[in-house]
Amino acid sequence: MYFTVLNSLVSAGLCTKLATIPPHFVSELPYIYVITPTYARSVQKAELTRIANTFSHIKNLHWIVVEDSDERTNLTTHFLFHCGINYTHLHIRSIEHKRRGVEQRNIGLAWLRHNREPNVSRGVVYFADDDNTYSIEIFEEMRYTKKVSIWPVGLTFEARYETPIIGPDNKVKSWHAWHSTERKFATDMAGFAINLNLLLNNPHVWFDNTTRDGFLESSLLSQLVELNDLEPKADNCTKVLVWHTKTITPVFSEDKTWNLEI
Amino acid sequence: MYFTVLNSLVSAGLCTKLATIPPHFVSELPYIYVITPTYARSVQKAELTRIANTFSHIKNLHWIVVEDSDERTNLTTHFLFHCGINYTHLHIRSIEHKRRGVEQRNIGLAWLRHNREPNVSRGVVYFADDDNTYSIEIFEEMRYTKKVSIWPVGLTFEARYETPIIGPDNKVKSWHAWHSTERKFATDMAGFAINLNLLLNNPHVWFDNTTRDGFLESSLLSQLVELNDLEPKADNCTKVLVWHTKTITPVFSEDKTWNLEI
Repeated sequence: MYFTVLNSLVSAGLCTKLATIPPHFVSELPYIYVITPTYARSVQKAELTRIANTFSHIKNLHWIVVEDSDERTNLTTHFLFHCGINYTHLHIRSIEHKRRGVEQRNIGLAWLRHNREPNVSRGVVYFADDDNTYSIEIFEEMRYTKKVSIWPVGLTFEARYETPIIGPDNKVKSWHAWHSTERKFATDMAGFAINLNLLLNNPHVWFDNTTRDGFLESSLLSQLVELNDLEPKADNCTKVLVWHTKTITPVFSEDKTWNLEI
Repeated sequence: MYFTVLNSLVSAGLCTKLATIPPHFVSELPYIYVITPTYARSVQKAELTRIANTFSHIKNLHWIVVEDSDERTNLTTHFLFHCGINYTHLHIRSIEHKRRGVEQRNIGLAWLRHNREPNVSRGVVYFADDDNTYSIEIFEEMRYTKKVSIWPVGLTFEARYETPIIGPDNKVKSWHAWHSTERKFATDMAGFAINLNLLLNNPHVWFDNTTRDGFLESSLLSQLVELNDLEPKADNCTKVLVWHTKTITPVFSEDKTWNLEI
């Protein structure tokens, strides 16, 4: 029922889209579809600005920005219109405030399934939160993903990085990561990309908002691939090219009377 | 004495430089010299990565990166070598740990005075810390600064932004900012840029590490210009194009045994 609603939300046009074709377009290159959940907060425009400065280096990137909101906000609408990146702007309110991102990523998937054609469209799907840090290299690493590519993520929960452990056959054997024995795919959301057609040809696959916290990624990937299918990137997982950075939420003083809209 | 030492450090070659000419070079455009103090910490490579992703959009940008260190570190050396930006890599240990950045910015100034020729070189000098967020627009706003250009900064101390207040004659009259009545120039370090020749022709002007905390910017600018000289940018200071973001320092768990060097 939930997933039917997601698809019908997109097909009914309740989630509108805007798109432009920026200069970074090369017809023979597969697309990189970046799905970014976002929500209104004091540091939002700064965070969107700096990831847009990264994404705007990448050829054939299509940015699917999904607001946690009942409608498209002016800030994000205005920002995207001027960002110079090919984009689609969606919105959906989270069912549970404490688990931001699940509905937003799912409606991004629904948009792709409604707007891209299986076995014709070429590309890769990457879930990139707006507070993380991305090197430019990681996008070229992921562009030709056959099924699911995988790499280390820096500054993850309690560790300087988390990473797949690669065996002598260049296959993923296990993980250096939080709850690595319980999670079949012990990766952070920023640590993998999925071939577009694998998602289009498996239309029943969604993020499951009933999983335990931290098991979202493993639950999704378990529906699509086996450990043996993973394609290690970033020099066989020996480099950190993505970081799970977090920005301090500033506390504003109420007696600052110059808090006007500028 | 202190300032003589700074100059002699540069002239003795103790602060080495490396430079490359990247593709973003247009001979008729003035240079933007960005001076960035940096220091070793867990989020350093992530922060350098995302500001480099911004700076690499800018034509004729020369990045002067100054480490708070007794020697150039491997991390920063390797990072700069591969960042694709024209750069100079310096280092100087802070005199006082609690006031990071003062000696680093001063040795950046000393390098410019030793390597650029007054009334011949053309450009602007901007002090950009490695944790802030910069829109691309702000660099074109500052490029043709005659003396000192000025603009709002978002997410500053206790306020959503701080800004110069502009009078009907388009001149700066006062400030919406912390300690605005006590500071002649109540701007954040990220809120102004200085014409290169103004600094080269005033070789006695340095950041003063004996000023009160928060008065560093005002003290420097007071030696160079009057309020009336300031050139308001960012649509007459009605837009925020720079944000004083701060990144959370992660706390790593000691029992994570995969903390190897990758």
